[in-house]
Amino acid sequence: MFLTRTEYDRGVNTFSPEGRLFQVEYAIEAIKLGSTAIGLKTKEGVVLAVEKRITSPLLEPSSVEKIMEIDEHIGCAMSGLIADARTLVEHARVETQNHRFSYGEAMTVESTTQALCDLALRFGEGDEESMSRPFGVSLLIAGHDENGPSLYYTDPSGTFWQCNAKAIGSGSEGADSSLQEQYNKELSLLEAETIALSILKQVMEEKVTPNNVDIAKVAPTYHLYTPDEVEAVINRL
Amino acid sequence: MFLTRTEYDRGVNTFSPEGRLFQVEYAIEAIKLGSTAIGLKTKEGVVLAVEKRITSPLLEPSSVEKIMEIDEHIGCAMSGLIADARTLVEHARVETQNHRFSYGEAMTVESTTQALCDLALRFGEGDEESMSRPFGVSLLIAGHDENGPSLYYTDPSGTFWQCNAKAIGSGSEGADSSLQEQYNKELSLLEAETIALSILKQVMEEKVTPNNVDIAKVAPTYHLYTPDEVEAVINRL
Amino acid sequence: MFLTRTEYDRGVNTFSPEGRLFQVEYAIEAIKLGSTAIGLKTKEGVVLAVEKRITSPLLEPSSVEKIMEIDEHIGCAMSGLIADARTLVEHARVETQNHRFSYGEAMTVESTTQALCDLALRFGEGDEESMSRPFGVSLLIAGHDENGPSLYYTDPSGTFWQCNAKAIGSGSEGADSSLQEQYNKELSLLEAETIALSILKQVMEEKVTPNNVDIAKVAPTYHLYTPDEVEAVINRL
Amino acid sequence: MFLTRTEYDRGVNTFSPEGRLFQVEYAIEAIKLGSTAIGLKTKEGVVLAVEKRITSPLLEPSSVEKIMEIDEHIGCAMSGLIADARTLVEHARVETQNHRFSYGEAMTVESTTQALCDLALRFGEGDEESMSRPFGVSLLIAGHDENGPSLYYTDPSGTFWQCNAKAIGSGSEGADSSLQEQYNKELSLLEAETIALSILKQVMEEKVTPNNVDIAKVAPTYHLYTPDEVEAVINRL
Amino acid sequence: MFLTRTEYDRGVNTFSPEGRLFQVEYAIEAIKLGSTAIGLKTKEGVVLAVEKRITSPLLEPSSVEKIMEIDEHIGCAMSGLIADARTLVEHARVETQNHRFSYGEAMTVESTTQALCDLALRFGEGDEESMSRPFGVSLLIAGHDENGPSLYYTDPSGTFWQCNAKAIGSGSEGADSSLQEQYNKELSLLEAETIALSILKQVMEEKVTPNNVDIAKVAPTYHLYTPDEVEAVINRL
Amino acid sequence: MFLTRTEYDRGVNTFSPEGRLFQVEYAIEAIKLGSTAIGLKTKEGVVLAVEKRITSPLLEPSSVEKIMEIDEHIGCAMSGLIADARTLVEHARVETQNHRFSYGEAMTVESTTQALCDLALRFGEGDEESMSRPFGVSLLIAGHDENGPSLYYTDPSGTFWQCNAKAIGSGSEGADSSLQEQYNKELSLLEAETIALSILKQVMEEKVTPNNVDIAKVAPTYHLYTPDEVEAVINRL
Amino acid sequence: MFLTRTEYDRGVNTFSPEGRLFQVEYAIEAIKLGSTAIGLKTKEGVVLAVEKRITSPLLEPSSVEKIMEIDEHIGCAMSGLIADARTLVEHARVETQNHRFSYGEAMTVESTTQALCDLALRFGEGDEESMSRPFGVSLLIAGHDENGPSLYYTDPSGTFWQCNAKAIGSGSEGADSSLQEQYNKELSLLEAETIALSILKQVMEEKVTPNNVDIAKVAPTYHLYTPDEVEAVINRL
Repeated sequence: MFLTRTEYDRGVNTFSPEGRLFQVEYAIEAIKLGSTAIGLKTKEGVVLAVEKRITSPLLEPSSVEKIMEIDEHIGCAMSGLIADARTLVEHARVETQNHRFSYGEAMTVESTTQALCDLALRFGEGDEESMSRPFGVSLLIAGHDENGPSLYYTDPSGTFWQCNAKAIGSGSEGADSSLQEQYNKELSLLEAETIALSILKQVMEEKVTPNNVDIAKVAPTYHLYTPDEVEAVINRL
Repeated sequence: MFLTRTEYDRGVNTFSPEGRLFQVEYAIEAIKLGSTAIGLKTKEGVVLAVEKRITSPLLEPSSVEKIMEIDEHIGCAMSGLIADARTLVEHARVETQNHRFSYGEAMTVESTTQALCDLALRFGEGDEESMSRPFGVSLLIAGHDENGPSLYYTDPSGTFWQCNAKAIGSGSEGADSSLQEQYNKELSLLEAETIALSILKQVMEEKVTPNNVDIAKVAPTYHLYTPDEVEAVINRL
Repeated sequence: MFLTRTEYDRGVNTFSPEGRLFQVEYAIEAIKLGSTAIGLKTKEGVVLAVEKRITSPLLEPSSVEKIMEIDEHIGCAMSGLIADARTLVEHARVETQNHRFSYGEAMTVESTTQALCDLALRFGEGDEESMSRPFGVSLLIAGHDENGPSLYYTDPSGTFWQCNAKAIGSGSEGADSSLQEQYNKELSLLEAETIALSILKQVMEEKVTPNNVDIAKVAPTYHLYTPDEVEAVINRL
Repeated sequence: MFLTRTEYDRGVNTFSPEGRLFQVEYAIEAIKLGSTAIGLKTKEGVVLAVEKRITSPLLEPSSVEKIMEIDEHIGCAMSGLIADARTLVEHARVETQNHRFSYGEAMTVESTTQALCDLALRFGEGDEESMSRPFGVSLLIAGHDENGPSLYYTDPSGTFWQCNAKAIGSGSEGADSSLQEQYNKELSLLEAETIALSILKQVMEEKVTPNNVDIAKVAPTYHLYTPDEVEAVINRL
Repeated sequence: MFLTRTEYDRGVNTFSPEGRLFQVEYAIEAIKLGSTAIGLKTKEGVVLAVEKRITSPLLEPSSVEKIMEIDEHIGCAMSGLIADARTLVEHARVETQNHRFSYGEAMTVESTTQALCDLALRFGEGDEESMSRPFGVSLLIAGHDENGPSLYYTDPSGTFWQCNAKAIGSGSEGADSSLQEQYNKELSLLEAETIALSILKQVMEEKVTPNNVDIAKVAPTYHLYTPDEVEAVINRL
Repeated sequence: MFLTRTEYDRGVNTFSPEGRLFQVEYAIEAIKLGSTAIGLKTKEGVVLAVEKRITSPLLEPSSVEKIMEIDEHIGCAMSGLIADARTLVEHARVETQNHRFSYGEAMTVESTTQALCDLALRFGEGDEESMSRPFGVSLLIAGHDENGPSLYYTDPSGTFWQCNAKAIGSGSEGADSSLQEQYNKELSLLEAETIALSILKQVMEEKVTPNNVDIAKVAPTYHLYTPDEVEAVINRL
Repeated sequence: MFLTRTEYDRGVNTFSPEGRLFQVEYAIEAIKLGSTAIGLKTKEGVVLAVEKRITSPLLEPSSVEKIMEIDEHIGCAMSGLIADARTLVEHARVETQNHRFSYGEAMTVESTTQALCDLALRFGEGDEESMSRPFGVSLLIAGHDENGPSLYYTDPSGTFWQCNAKAIGSGSEGADSSLQEQYNKELSLLEAETIALSILKQVMEEKVTPNNVDIAKVAPTYHLYTPDEVEAVINRL
């Protein structure tokens, strides 16, 4: 199946005769191997929920961070290569801090997303901050700024889209269908929590527990749910 | 079909024995996979219209930006890799701002277009701003300066042309024929809007709605149409 | 078995069509050739125990360092390429010293681990500190800070996890199973020492002696056991 | 036909066993695909005439610039890759401006030509201004300085020659023969205009109109003919 | 025998699927082609002895330096590529001098060894001091510092071990067996000299003379034996 | 014929198993394609004569410069790639000017030749002035300094020799034989002119005219013959 | 014969599976193509003698320099690529001048030789002074310092040896045998001259004349023999 491609797909940044960038497409495949993450935007704020794959009972569940704070008004959920995601998040944290310092106000969610994607696009160019390959990670970026709540989705090509709801990772196909069925703009934050977790439950192979999922909201500030708060959402299912 | 080329088409910047640059030609192919965009110049100003592919009902249509403002007197429509286009547009915004700051006046549309193309031509040279591959994007640049309204078309080779009307993207072939039939220099801006949208309608597979097309004009300043304004044009068809 | 991979696995930092980074996966193989190391976290502190392969009776056992101090509150055990591990540890020592100097307080165990992983992730990028290939080493990082005792596990991809107990190296599979059976959060430091050494004993081919194992604890400061102290633990088995 | 070359012709800057530089030869092929340009030197000044390929009736003919001003006493006609030519011309404009600023006088035509060729020769060397491949363009440089009128011809190898008359581009072979028959040193500028256009007419497939040819003279300053002036020459044929 | 390796062993710094670094392993082969060197640690000090291959009677034996002084308290014997060894020794001499200058005291033997190995590990990274391939040399480093006498052994991977006795080079296998039989920690320096030379004699093809062996000791300062002193040891055999 | 070489001859700077540098040898081939140039040293001064290939009657013969002045006491004739020669000559001009400025006296002919060859030798090393391939040109350098007249011959390997007489280019083989027959140290400058031109005449396919040969002398300063002076020499044949 | 090597011998600086560096070995082959040079050390000083290949009677014999002065107390004879040798000698001249300037005394012969070899070893590392391939030259370095007369021999690997007598180049094998037979430490300088020239005579195909050999001595300062002095030695044979 890759036979006709083999001449074009190894240069990190080379077009094929049909105008495709295969290394970017392969990096997108890396995300299909990742755990599932879901985001929903409501008028009250944005909810993020992720599956955590706890490969061993000796692992500290809280250290498997798949949802991270970028700034007090922005958080993100990730799927794919975690070390790559940490680099992007760290870059975004520096950008938002610099913006606060220089302008005395918070960076908008779109500008933060654009800054992340600029770094993702620059791979293979050999300067100090960029990677020598595409970043193998997708992000759901939840935030709240002067335009109210917003949810962005980024992929390894450095492209981003604004969404009302979106799933990424290995279970994203099924989860996206369910989201389209269940989502409407009038959802309360509470309903959004329930929908996110119930869809996550469908695509996970294990029983949902406070140990193997994480939930966070930006409403209007970032908050990662405690195990007790996650437990409460589970009980509502 | 690519058999005799295989020895020459992977070096990003290498001539073939016939004097061709294949990587640039392949980048041009990337644009044929992109959504269709149309530009028309009238004496009153320039109209840009683009198809937006909304792959999911949960995507925020307004975040699929295929028409962007460069400066208050210049806007552009794009087809191809969106992340590449954003890099070019961001570069052009910095150039036009610097020009305003240094000379106290707006940059001309041609100079702005030349600056964009300089960056596009420099790929593969390893300096800080250039890409390690050709930019996989074509732009329709609409502007208004001391020479009146103007419309430029750029391709991945860094070449540009001034046009009266032009279509780019997957439906460009059919759209260009229709433009040649329907265009004349005496069109009003209102007629140009109608022609642009009716041609876009022919090449799109879906029904045209305010959600899946964007329209903008530079007459003499940039304005992106609101959904209501788009609706009004649709109703005129 | 590597036939279908051969086109993708030699670029140090290239995705395969399935989204995998083979050079990183091969570096992980290097660790499976290494000696076994075990870490256990208790409420009183963390215990590290490693097998030392003394290939010749003329080798000075104390010079086969597989457990090293990073700062007075952090130590680590390693498996894989020792020279690579020394580079990472030296980097971490400089980071923790700089942190003490700049902020007048100890660096947290997680920040230290993140700094190590940042360096590990940056391979192939040609800047001054990074390597031109992945680091072929895994670390168990034991520490004690304001959050109490903690144990981290890192791999060559630059990813890290927090654990209660973890084994790395050639005997890690069997050792991990034993740890899951025998570990509980209420273990005393004394019990953890005994469990670590008894599991190490199972996976080693030779008789355990003060010469071919090393034990260290961070409780709350780093201490490498003297041969007599190791002897005492052996006698408790 | 390229069989025996295939081992030597892809390194941008590598000699073949016979002492040839194939990438430069292939770039010269790119010019044979370009539109035809003609230059004639008379005692009164130099005339340049070019074919413009207007691929669409919607293209603005005046924006297809194949003759450009370098300084007020130097102009040039081009054939090949237009974006490459623009880079060379821009470089020459900066050089002539700097010369005026530093020495208070115009740069000679030969020095300007040498500066262009220095840049063309430096390809593949990775410094800031040079290209990573040969420039795919030939220029006819017309000028007037203290030595009177002069006409230079440059090719992608960075070599230049002074000529009395010269044609470049796809129709250059036939045009050069006609020039040799019709040229003599006593031609008036008016006669030179007529000869240039009549030869261009022979090699063009379309009817000659003010839209698809450009004419310029340096006599002693650069002047690009208006459509009316072109029309007048056409009428003289 | 190298068939399955051929895909992985030429990149200077690339892992094979089994997690091996072949270029380092091949550099280790270079040492097996080298002359034999032996080191023994006693309580009184360390003895180094090397075979010198005098390929021509016209060669000055004293110029075939296989034992070199690093600092007054450290010397080393080498096997492999002599020019590589000289680079490492010169680097170590600068390091120890800088240390004396900065801290007013001698550098410890372990720190000196670590500095040598840091340089050895950094090959292929393109910075100023490192090599573009692994160093093809092993060293026996003999020293005396506040911890008493010590003997280190380094290999091309940048790894080092502390030993009581060690042989390197083409005869190392047999010599190491003999060392294990004859070594004990209570040897006098005089006995160590005799053992080193008698073992060297076994693995050399020629008769031992003051011309084809060198002996040095660090007890506690470095001293290279004169031909008469070597003669005296030979006479004791 | 190049079959056994094909593995070694494309690296710009790689030895073959027999110790040869093929890219340099291929560059030397480039000179065998060039026009013929001849130099003769007499006690009165040095004569240079070159064939000029005027490929078109419309070419300005004086612009085909194959003899150039380096400094007032040094000139050179060239064969091979003219653009390469211009780079070397320009480099030599800067060197001799700098020498005059720094030391207040003319640079010797040997030092100038050495400076040219240093640049020629440094190809493939990526610094600012050197080329990425060997220079495809040979030079005959004629000069006069405190040691009297001298003639040097350089080739693409960066080697140079002092000669009494020498021919380079496509006709060099026959011309060298004729020079050996006709040269003696007692020649007058006038006789040298005649010999140079008569030999050039033998190897040229066309009739010799002031348009297709150039003659220069350094006696003791550089002088390029006017067409009338060339005519006078032709008439003496 | 090179079949099994072909995978390893083209990387400029790569080990083969047997631990060999083929590019260095191939550079050593380049010397076997060079002219023969001989050096002999006596108590009175060192004699160097070289064959000069005068390929044309028009070549100035004195310009074929195969023996060069480095400093007033050091000279060297060379075999292999002359342009490479000049680079090494020029480097050594700068080093010895700098040493005189900094320390007010002459550099020792060994330090000068080491400086030459440091440069030779650094090939392929891309810094400013080093070459991108091994230097294809061997040197015989003759000198006189506080340790009396000395003779060093260097090869392309950057290794050096001190010798009593040594031959290099195409006739070195036979010449070395003759040297071993005829050399003894009690030779006078006069006898050494005669031996050197008589051995050179055996390996040369032509009759020995003052034109095709050069002789120099360092006793204690460098002196290159005049043709008359060479003639005198020839007459003594």
